Amino acid sequence: IGDDAAVVRLPAGHRLLLTTDLLAEGIHFDLTTATYEDLGYKAAVANLSDIAAMGGTPRHMLVAMALPADRTVSQIRRLYGGLMKACRQHGVALIGGDTSASRGGLFISVTLTGTAPPGQVLMRDGARVGDFIYVTGTLGDSLAGLNLLTAQRRKNPPRYERTLMNRHLRPTARIAAGQTLASRGLATAAIDLSDGLSGDLAHLCEQSAVGAEITATALPLSPACRAYAAAHRVDPTRLALAGGEDYELLFTVSPKNRATVDRLAHEAPYRITSIGIIRPKSFGLRLRDEEGSLKKLTISSYQHFQNPPTVRS
Amino acid sequence: IGDDAAVVRLPAGHRLLLTTDLLAEGIHFDLTTATYEDLGYKAAVANLSDIAAMGGTPRHMLVAMALPADRTVSQIRRLYGGLMKACRQHGVALIGGDTSASRGGLFISVTLTGTAPPGQVLMRDGARVGDFIYVTGTLGDSLAGLNLLTAQRRKNPPRYERTLMNRHLRPTARIAAGQTLASRGLATAAIDLSDGLSGDLAHLCEQSAVGAEITATALPLSPACRAYAAAHRVDPTRLALAGGEDYELLFTVSPKNRATVDRLAHEAPYRITSIGIIRPKSFGLRLRDEEGSLKKLTISSYQHFQNPPTVRS
Repeated sequence: IGDDAAVVRLPAGHRLLLTTDLLAEGIHFDLTTATYEDLGYKAAVANLSDIAAMGGTPRHMLVAMALPADRTVSQIRRLYGGLMKACRQHGVALIGGDTSASRGGLFISVTLTGTAPPGQVLMRDGARVGDFIYVTGTLGDSLAGLNLLTAQRRKNPPRYERTLMNRHLRPTARIAAGQTLASRGLATAAIDLSDGLSGDLAHLCEQSAVGAEITATALPLSPACRAYAAAHRVDPTRLALAGGEDYELLFTVSPKNRATVDRLAHEAPYRITSIGIIRPKSFGLRLRDEEGSLKKLTISSYQHFQNPPTVRS
Repeated sequence: IGDDAAVVRLPAGHRLLLTTDLLAEGIHFDLTTATYEDLGYKAAVANLSDIAAMGGTPRHMLVAMALPADRTVSQIRRLYGGLMKACRQHGVALIGGDTSASRGGLFISVTLTGTAPPGQVLMRDGARVGDFIYVTGTLGDSLAGLNLLTAQRRKNPPRYERTLMNRHLRPTARIAAGQTLASRGLATAAIDLSDGLSGDLAHLCEQSAVGAEITATALPLSPACRAYAAAHRVDPTRLALAGGEDYELLFTVSPKNRATVDRLAHEAPYRITSIGIIRPKSFGLRLRDEEGSLKKLTISSYQHFQNPPTVRS
């Protein structure tokens, strides 16, 4: 910081991974449901999760912000505090920051580098017919949490509601899981769940030119998500399929590595669940429902630009 | 493109340079005076110039945009066209792009990587008392061009006006100059002129803990800038000192390398001019004016965030 560009040194021979995100107020985040610290934390995790999905080690973060004139120094300090908190957990150095004015809401641009040894990078295009489909953690918690945050809030929310809101505001990037899968050559393809299972599975299958069959009863649901679904009479399977911003990893495993991954799953401090199988492209994306019948998998995840805001600038 | 992060390979042992910019409509650019292609071109050059100032070779660009719903596909295509045109000139690969919605104007985030061999990186903190201060090209053209673009336009502007408007809309990043200075160890410090000579000189002097004396009569002015100054009765020295976005390089040279740099200046296809000398910190920043007397150098360059927009979001 202080020069025109940051100068960094990378491990010899490693590949450089680069990811960037531009987050817009009123589109990607809303400061009525999140604090500035939450926002910073989540902006960092969204990028950390991209590096996790590649199996890399996150290294350096650059942040640029455009700030409306009504924001205070204390708010911006809390935003950076959230960014740095998430970075510290993964040994990431915040090496550049830039702020300028904005006439239209707060915008945050985060760029993150990562590194990985050659041949140990997870891509989206390696899934093959017969591979098993896995996810880390549980699905749908973030969407349930968002629903709770945007609804009329209770004064003393039950514990499961607090769990879900926290999962939405403070997600976890699965860095260690991605590194293990990449360094041991256990995954044929991987993607992080930012758009939701159905949408991100569609991305992975498109890049790999394959189809997929997902088993509804296999989808990992947290007790909190089940409690929310029961209380609000919603189908938890739909939350798991459509819910964005879980930041779990979706990955595919060839039959010969299945036993190894299942062994790892037993040792991991979070769930690693087999939820389906890769099928030929002509099969498309299908869901085996609770009754055992196959139906088309609806891609219901949120796509920012295909749902433009109704409020014009 | 297609994966969570881009994967690139760097020359063995080289340092990685990283720079990022977030450009906001109505703050950094205005689409009434620039086309979408101009905007893309200039957004790329602003970042290329940062790598030039470090003496690096630009390598990979990532672009993220937040787009209001009223923008057309054709406008965005022209914006990318401008970005790619500037990238192509320097062999830079556009390796990632992301667009999302915006409720408050167009925002463009550009991240650029560069590389440089270890020990061949130009920094801002190496200027020493007695070093000579140089600039590439001519100064003030971009500000004169901006003034012309925002004023009532003439139907058939004279050639010098077209030259100045073009210098504002299509600046040049001094990549080759930066690389030569860095690889041959000729500069003790360098910065690119984005805020204007007075402001950027202040940044360099602050980082190097030195002062500086600039000779007004030495400032390189183009014939077009002189013609503009005469026609509008403005002081061209003020344009040169205050004008931002020239994207020329300001650098310092130790006395032992002065002859070498002067020889290079004769061979270069653009001007390289000695404009002053580094003084002790206690000297401050001073200008030797046309009459030969020393006065305080006013730092008059535009600083986005210290001049917040008067229109609130």
